Amino acid sequence: MSASSSSSSSSNPMSREDATLLPSVEDKYGGVRTEMTHPMDPSLFSSLLRASLSNWTLQGKKGVWIKLPKHLIGLAETAVKEGFWFHHAEKDYLMLVYWIPKDVHTLPANASHRVRIGAYVINHYKEVLVVQEKTGRFQGQSFWKFPTGVVNEGEDIHDGSVREVKEGTGVDTEFVQILAFRQTHKAFLEKSDLFFVCMLKPLSLEINAQESEIEAAQENLVQWMPWEEYTKQPFVQNNELLRYMIDICSAKTDGGYEGFTPIRVSAPDQQGNLYYNTRDLHSGH
Amino acid sequence: MSASSSSSSSSNPMSREDATLLPSVEDKYGGVRTEMTHPMDPSLFSSLLRASLSNWTLQGKKGVWIKLPKHLIGLAETAVKEGFWFHHAEKDYLMLVYWIPKDVHTLPANASHRVRIGAYVINHYKEVLVVQEKTGRFQGQSFWKFPTGVVNEGEDIHDGSVREVKEGTGVDTEFVQILAFRQTHKAFLEKSDLFFVCMLKPLSLEINAQESEIEAAQENLVQWMPWEEYTKQPFVQNNELLRYMIDICSAKTDGGYEGFTPIRVSAPDQQGNLYYNTRDLHSGH
Repeated sequence: MSASSSSSSSSNPMSREDATLLPSVEDKYGGVRTEMTHPMDPSLFSSLLRASLSNWTLQGKKGVWIKLPKHLIGLAETAVKEGFWFHHAEKDYLMLVYWIPKDVHTLPANASHRVRIGAYVINHYKEVLVVQEKTGRFQGQSFWKFPTGVVNEGEDIHDGSVREVKEGTGVDTEFVQILAFRQTHKAFLEKSDLFFVCMLKPLSLEINAQESEIEAAQENLVQWMPWEEYTKQPFVQNNELLRYMIDICSAKTDGGYEGFTPIRVSAPDQQGNLYYNTRDLHSGH
Repeated sequence: MSASSSSSSSSNPMSREDATLLPSVEDKYGGVRTEMTHPMDPSLFSSLLRASLSNWTLQGKKGVWIKLPKHLIGLAETAVKEGFWFHHAEKDYLMLVYWIPKDVHTLPANASHRVRIGAYVINHYKEVLVVQEKTGRFQGQSFWKFPTGVVNEGEDIHDGSVREVKEGTGVDTEFVQILAFRQTHKAFLEKSDLFFVCMLKPLSLEINAQESEIEAAQENLVQWMPWEEYTKQPFVQNNELLRYMIDICSAKTDGGYEGFTPIRVSAPDQQGNLYYNTRDLHSGH
């Protein structure tokens, strides 16, 4: 351990006594986190980082996290040279990590999935709400599909589905249930995709996409389409997934199919929504 | 457009005619992707990037993606100065993006969710497979819980649950069904968490964690515990989420509850597993 300190001292002009350490907070897993906020000369950062690593090693720390805001990305090279790797990045920062012990690290994995919804919205005339995309993967193809969208970070799936339908079509809805979901891989770069098929009840019939505040709505064609007409589209019939979806949605509308309904549930660590088959649980138990 | 080219020329010694462009490939959304692979002087990178951006602008390109491997992270500062921001990062690379048009970008969101599983494994003696963690959040607390784990990137949820049970307990299992799932936010840094409660059928009763190749198994205590004993633990009784889980698992074992079962389904874009209520769909439809 002392060897580590002395090598740190020998490689930079700061003596052990003078060395300031990077400001850090301990996490509950035996690690430390530091967030850089002000510009710093890379050589000074290198000195502080080495001294800090020696100190954390002496303290028996395990994981070390460094958050670098975008405007300080110039410091990343220094951390990489010390053995750090990337944990994840968001729009405005890069998170670097390092594992002090000699064994395999137990740091949490990066987020691996994107969450999307497809909305089954059917009215009392047995018409289903469908859109035709003017941009994106299906642009220029003249078929009608369920409204779809990406659930935002921090957004509940049921809230996200109501929001996406409103933004894409102008129709207000009430969330009913998740009917099914599909998991695929390498859907977007190396990431996986969870696509939740949600049933929503329309609260209005008026299609009002043009007045939506969201630009995307103006790029879609929207209509209420007779269910039979939707299902007869060749692109639907030629798609095994969509044929399953038709069967599931039909079974739901006919009353025989039960999906998962969200219930707000608390746990010691945090609040969340539990989605489950409420009909089966509450009938006879 | 020409102003952009001339400002590029004036800020570096390369003439417009000599300027080489960054190698890039077009994506199907009207954007371009470039991957840096070899070290380059930052000033040269800056010149190439500016010339390339001018060229892509003239071509009407939209999104620009730059993948920087860890060892070339020193080039990130240059890209940030040109207006790039971070899209995501993995262990060994940072992905930067830029949007050429003046309107709001339509680039795909970063992955937002981590996917975890909790495994309900019950044997013919009505004993449930439980573990006591020696590390992690619950270390040192003497309660017994279902095996849990993180689904790997690119891994199917049902495969991940079988793997996690094997690694954590040594018990071989067969996936039965997803009984419920919970979504929570800011579970890990800013990311959200999807926790799938899976029922698995044990194929063996032997607990063999010590011989597992995975170190984590050696850190857990494992046993088959009578179901009633599991449910009576105070930490279970004091946790609303776990009380729901007990009810759902009991209803499943008693035969009245149906969750979602995976079926391999193809779509034009890719293969994936569709999880749905197979009992309700195939009974009477």
